[in-house]
Amino acid sequence: MTDSPAPARDAVPTTADPLDRFVAVIPAGGVGTRLWPLSRAAAPKFLHDLTGSGSTLIRATYDRLTPLARGRFLVVTGEAHRAAVCRQIPELDAADLVLESEPKDSGAAIGLAAAILHRRNPDAIMGSFAADQVISPDSVFQSAVLEAIRTAASGPRGKIVTIGIEPTHPSTGFGYIRRGEALEVEGAPSARAVVEFVEKPSREVAEDYLATGEYLWNAGMFVAPVALMLEHLKANQPELFAGLTEIAEAWDTPARDEVAARVWPTLPKIAIDYAVAEPAAAAGDVAVVPGAFRWDDVGDFAAIGRLNSAREVDSVTVLGEGARVFTEDASGIVVSDTKRVIALIGIQDVVIVDTPDALLVTTTEHAQKVKNAVAGLKASGDTDVL
Amino acid sequence: MTDSPAPARDAVPTTADPLDRFVAVIPAGGVGTRLWPLSRAAAPKFLHDLTGSGSTLIRATYDRLTPLARGRFLVVTGEAHRAAVCRQIPELDAADLVLESEPKDSGAAIGLAAAILHRRNPDAIMGSFAADQVISPDSVFQSAVLEAIRTAASGPRGKIVTIGIEPTHPSTGFGYIRRGEALEVEGAPSARAVVEFVEKPSREVAEDYLATGEYLWNAGMFVAPVALMLEHLKANQPELFAGLTEIAEAWDTPARDEVAARVWPTLPKIAIDYAVAEPAAAAGDVAVVPGAFRWDDVGDFAAIGRLNSAREVDSVTVLGEGARVFTEDASGIVVSDTKRVIALIGIQDVVIVDTPDALLVTTTEHAQKVKNAVAGLKASGDTDVL
Repeated sequence: MTDSPAPARDAVPTTADPLDRFVAVIPAGGVGTRLWPLSRAAAPKFLHDLTGSGSTLIRATYDRLTPLARGRFLVVTGEAHRAAVCRQIPELDAADLVLESEPKDSGAAIGLAAAILHRRNPDAIMGSFAADQVISPDSVFQSAVLEAIRTAASGPRGKIVTIGIEPTHPSTGFGYIRRGEALEVEGAPSARAVVEFVEKPSREVAEDYLATGEYLWNAGMFVAPVALMLEHLKANQPELFAGLTEIAEAWDTPARDEVAARVWPTLPKIAIDYAVAEPAAAAGDVAVVPGAFRWDDVGDFAAIGRLNSAREVDSVTVLGEGARVFTEDASGIVVSDTKRVIALIGIQDVVIVDTPDALLVTTTEHAQKVKNAVAGLKASGDTDVL
Repeated sequence: MTDSPAPARDAVPTTADPLDRFVAVIPAGGVGTRLWPLSRAAAPKFLHDLTGSGSTLIRATYDRLTPLARGRFLVVTGEAHRAAVCRQIPELDAADLVLESEPKDSGAAIGLAAAILHRRNPDAIMGSFAADQVISPDSVFQSAVLEAIRTAASGPRGKIVTIGIEPTHPSTGFGYIRRGEALEVEGAPSARAVVEFVEKPSREVAEDYLATGEYLWNAGMFVAPVALMLEHLKANQPELFAGLTEIAEAWDTPARDEVAARVWPTLPKIAIDYAVAEPAAAAGDVAVVPGAFRWDDVGDFAAIGRLNSAREVDSVTVLGEGARVFTEDASGIVVSDTKRVIALIGIQDVVIVDTPDALLVTTTEHAQKVKNAVAGLKASGDTDVL
């Protein structure tokens, strides 16, 4: 690690078991515009229980990672969500939270996590898992992460390891990962090299991908030595790297607030995919472990209908404790944040989201267009409900 | 009038102009179940502005009749609506209100109005017009009522005169009036005898009715000498007649409350059609004046869509001052009693009624089934929103 980009202070000795180097990073950002008006700036998607499990998505993410991380977490979220996140995960210490004063895309958020972890332990392996995804069963996910950790620790410099989802249909809504030859990693029999990341394809291209069996969905999950992450970040985004390094050096000192307030707003906005993953793949430093678990990014209300089957009123899926739903010849989804009576009569595949100050009515087919409503409301100045 | 069923006190002298004998009766009952949750027990249909005119239906009814009634009104409504009705029509005196302690169908409501008016003036001609219908233009309506008043005053005993609506389509939702030979009434050239009233027909029968040109819609409007009304009521419903007579005799005395409280609850429930109109038609005492005005009983939310075109957001008709409606590729009707943001995306012919404690989502096609929702909510005990 002589080429590690920033010298370590208070370094923890590296052990033989790569699991001991593992820290789970949970980026909890993103308003979830397509789930408006349930998800909104003040109460984003990850703070909701969208599956009827009794847990919010962020709490479920924390619980799912706990057997591997065993208390070593870093949650990256907006300052506005500090209190809500701490209510959801009271186990978090102040040192386990990275609060953004303004959103800066995943390059800065995950890069800062990598830089802070590197200052604390240059041998750390981070695993980044978004706070707003639904995964089951946990055990299959944990097996995949364990293989990813072993792969990330393999070889002299390690690997950046993404966990790719086995596609179940030719989705045009996700990017894909093209896998290459098998890697020979002990305890990680399914690890493969990554040939390339590809953007969201057309329907025809997606069908070709599915037919070859060589493509996986890119779910944005990856496990990597922080030193290797930073090495690629430095090579590809030197300005971002320099800023993050400056903040990270001050992070565990009294200078944190002053430095973060000065530097963070100046950082470029770029996705971690472009800042690190794609150039690293081109350099041969990326591996993939397939995930055979059920995965859903809960991208729209149609997903909520799929994920919830516990409470059905006739053919209507009902999410929400207080809702009193009456149906006649109706099907679809009702998400209620109120205690109102909701009567559905003679209407099919409807999506109704009922909150105290905003009501959405659409269909499962059009659920993806909800973000247009949010854009329209922003344009018309109705920002009080966004 | 020697056979008039109850002796008159304080009789007003009859004049040559039948218009001077005219009193407008406005039955304001009926929850308007098919307009739930906008219309409900505490705020029935007639207390709403359903046309965007700026007037509630009952106020518009009063204003429409004022040129003919010139202050002589009797409004029959439930005790629960006294304050709301007086707010809508501050011109009403206490003597102009008949308050029902419990609903008793139109036979008792209109029969009591007839009996009270008969006590005040046995030569009175009543004109009964429901408080929850939409009519335009007023002048055409007033011309028809004037012909009806002249017809009601014609001949030795007068006539019970219904105003029938010229049908515009083969409706299966209304009863029909079959007209007979022309009557020779001065100043009422379109008056015809009524052969019979017929119940709501099947589609095929309704088409036949329309083809003959001899059938009109029964809108429940009629104009008649109160003495003739009571004569038929006495002959066909002697028990109801006796009870109404007892209440009417006490009405303008200190005994009113005691007698009404004792007798009203014992009265049979029967529609005025069965109690008076149909047997009177069989006896040859009923005439009809056709109404060429536009008439709508606002039977469901589809009607509200038809009646309102003032405020359109794209293809969505919006009723309600406070609603902030955002649409994309949507059509239908939004009726809002709240100030919430309502977003409609990719949904056609939808009917949304948004009130503080209840939400209805249906389609214009299924708008007639809303009463089923009300029945269902009643059965499930959700009576707080009915």
